[in-house]
Amino acid sequence: MTTLSSSWLNALRAALGDRVSAQPGHLGAHARDEGTPLTRTPGAVVFARSEADVLGTLAVAREHGVPVTPWGAGTSLEGAALPVPGAISLDLTGLDAVGEVDPVGWTVTVGPGMRRLNLNRRLRPHGLFFPVDPGADASLGGMAATNASGTTTVRYGGMREHVAALRVALVDGRVLTLGSAARKSSSGYALKGLFIGSEGTLGVITSLTLRLHPLPPATASAQLAFPDVEAAVGASLTLRGLGVLPERLEFVDAATVRAVNRHRDRRDPEEPTLWVEVAGRDRGDVDAQLALVAEAAGLHGGQVVGEARTPEAAGALWAARHGVYDALRAAWPGHATRIGDVCVPLPALAGTAALALRLLGERGLTAPLVGHIGDGNLHLLMHAPPDDAGAWARIDHVLHALAAHAVAVGGTCTGEHGVGLRKRAYLRAEHGDALDVMRDVKALLDPRGLLNPGKVVGDPGWDPVPSS
Amino acid sequence: MTTLSSSWLNALRAALGDRVSAQPGHLGAHARDEGTPLTRTPGAVVFARSEADVLGTLAVAREHGVPVTPWGAGTSLEGAALPVPGAISLDLTGLDAVGEVDPVGWTVTVGPGMRRLNLNRRLRPHGLFFPVDPGADASLGGMAATNASGTTTVRYGGMREHVAALRVALVDGRVLTLGSAARKSSSGYALKGLFIGSEGTLGVITSLTLRLHPLPPATASAQLAFPDVEAAVGASLTLRGLGVLPERLEFVDAATVRAVNRHRDRRDPEEPTLWVEVAGRDRGDVDAQLALVAEAAGLHGGQVVGEARTPEAAGALWAARHGVYDALRAAWPGHATRIGDVCVPLPALAGTAALALRLLGERGLTAPLVGHIGDGNLHLLMHAPPDDAGAWARIDHVLHALAAHAVAVGGTCTGEHGVGLRKRAYLRAEHGDALDVMRDVKALLDPRGLLNPGKVVGDPGWDPVPSS
Repeated sequence: MTTLSSSWLNALRAALGDRVSAQPGHLGAHARDEGTPLTRTPGAVVFARSEADVLGTLAVAREHGVPVTPWGAGTSLEGAALPVPGAISLDLTGLDAVGEVDPVGWTVTVGPGMRRLNLNRRLRPHGLFFPVDPGADASLGGMAATNASGTTTVRYGGMREHVAALRVALVDGRVLTLGSAARKSSSGYALKGLFIGSEGTLGVITSLTLRLHPLPPATASAQLAFPDVEAAVGASLTLRGLGVLPERLEFVDAATVRAVNRHRDRRDPEEPTLWVEVAGRDRGDVDAQLALVAEAAGLHGGQVVGEARTPEAAGALWAARHGVYDALRAAWPGHATRIGDVCVPLPALAGTAALALRLLGERGLTAPLVGHIGDGNLHLLMHAPPDDAGAWARIDHVLHALAAHAVAVGGTCTGEHGVGLRKRAYLRAEHGDALDVMRDVKALLDPRGLLNPGKVVGDPGWDPVPSS
Repeated sequence: MTTLSSSWLNALRAALGDRVSAQPGHLGAHARDEGTPLTRTPGAVVFARSEADVLGTLAVAREHGVPVTPWGAGTSLEGAALPVPGAISLDLTGLDAVGEVDPVGWTVTVGPGMRRLNLNRRLRPHGLFFPVDPGADASLGGMAATNASGTTTVRYGGMREHVAALRVALVDGRVLTLGSAARKSSSGYALKGLFIGSEGTLGVITSLTLRLHPLPPATASAQLAFPDVEAAVGASLTLRGLGVLPERLEFVDAATVRAVNRHRDRRDPEEPTLWVEVAGRDRGDVDAQLALVAEAAGLHGGQVVGEARTPEAAGALWAARHGVYDALRAAWPGHATRIGDVCVPLPALAGTAALALRLLGERGLTAPLVGHIGDGNLHLLMHAPPDDAGAWARIDHVLHALAAHAVAVGGTCTGEHGVGLRKRAYLRAEHGDALDVMRDVKALLDPRGLLNPGKVVGDPGWDPVPSS
């Protein structure tokens, strides 16, 4: 099943012609994602251009028992997009159509291969935008498949809140239309939500109708330094209590500010730091909100380090936050990176951040700690020389301890990166008996286990040996 | 199975003692909901006081094959809470515990029998509130079970966005904990969402962890009159574009304003009318928003009819909106009522409202048309003498045509009232093949069909004959 078989490849070519490739370059480009050191080389890549191509691929998969793993932009971090070695990588980047923007209902229907930056370029003339921003220029199908979120989730929510409708191809050849452009419904079971975050294990997304928002008339930003993480969390809550719901609310630890200072020749206070963006109806509105930002910071012993009231100034202010990854690359050239993500209830956030820094220190590691603090979502940007097995073992230990801690304090092992191959081991502790029900749902929709097998609810011990 | 059987009743009494009642008064009180003329008298009511009581009831149901229908406040409108005649009504009002309010994470855990007004009274000293407001003083378990929403959904979302975690008892005796107090997650399949809106057909909710919001520091309201529905919709969108996201945005048709004028001796312009509540950080903030409300109305030919800047004034202003039902009762004493609800994409909203008024006119009916206009959600408050079969047939025709229209224009047959018994006929047209998958999910979790049988995804032709 997992080895290259001429019969299924011939069937695929007969059905899909030149959309099928077994060229080494194409295979290699679908063998790795952005976050894992793993290589899982497919036996063929289907460059689908239509829903019919997806259905054709699934028909061959069905008839020949060949696994299929959907592929968007390859920006996944936990292995969700890695194919079964020798099997099919179903590349959906060709399904990148964008429908007409609905100027009244504020929706647009896109193919799963459309990427978010391109979408936002097309939306701007309409005065609208799609807020979910995971950092990477991910595909919208991939973002739905992992329930991605990011910097703006504190205000707008993540993918789950922004997918109004989905078309999903099931492995048996049915195509479901789930949800609608209506803003709410109490009609039937919420199957749409079941597919969001299922990482291609239950069906293949062939189209998404997305909710859009009006571009805010005015925005402004502030950078705030705090004595400790708890004070930063407290200030963010006080701000909400004062009636300010920020567009973005981003945290970086003190050591990372130091690294960015060195890399960019900045002199920011080397303390736990927040970046806050507020949006409003006009300049006066955002100025009033900035005043409350300063007040909230002051109530928790923090101070305003910088403010930005123009797009240019905001670009410079946020450069320090966005410069974290570059500073890491500059400080440790040649290192490979691995990003770990957990999400905890807000009362546990400061303790979780402290634990992360302590775990790093105990093992002689350094790693930027960045977070979507309003959501309780923390990221560790781990790094080491690619071949330093000892360092990677210590990194694994830290990330493991952090994920286990997040579950133990009532949080989740993955806030926005998905489960893929690498977070499966925490699902039993996090979900208990519900994991068995999840597996029943998987068996219901994919009884032969052909859709992205092993991922999400699969046996944590299962990992196909690369065959090529 | 659906008749009173001494063996299961004895087993229930053995397991649950005096929490079991077969007194006619108790049976009758669980035989009707608020929205349907149907009477479905149970054979026994279990007044559960704990999750253990729920599990004990399910064990008897399993062993004796007796259907169980959960009961919250009985405020359902489409028959969701009606038991199978002669079977068990599982009354959850005794599961009304309220846990400690988390002042950092802004969550609280409640039993399913807790009602929303009582909850909000308890939250107020903490400076927090639970925004989902369906009008009725419903139980929170029932609100989750029907994915209720209401007046504040335009800003905050409905139950789906506010249930952080659920405990659900399955018919096989397992208890699942779904979701967590973390604000987001990409971990595993979204089973929590599957139970929200499932109307007790997949499991029994025994506990809910709810997301809360800070009480706004300041609020103000305006009443706006428009030449037509389209102008009212346009103004609500313009308002969003100007950077104002209202707390509430409510619509009432012209004839209904006339009825309220008569009933309350008011002189409001008898035109399509919006009530808007805005919230902000202080008086200046809400005044600025009210100015934009007036501007948005003016751009669409509307005018400000009234404004309110104090809680007392707001009470008087909103009285006209809240007085719709009373005006209906006063104008047509002795009439029974039936509320129909649909939700359509916003571009279809004005057309749907016009259709509703035309359908009424063609059949010589009058009925208030009220709507959560920012969500595209319309309600018709139908009324007639209880025994006027001809009038009720015409009412059924109008509600049927409206639900079919909502589905045909890409909306949903029920925006917030659920499916129950009466909206089942529209699910095939609305969901297509997905209805079969919903039925597969039902069969997976409740293979013998003991949980609230016939509801939501059941055969639309199935309706148990009352046995008592």
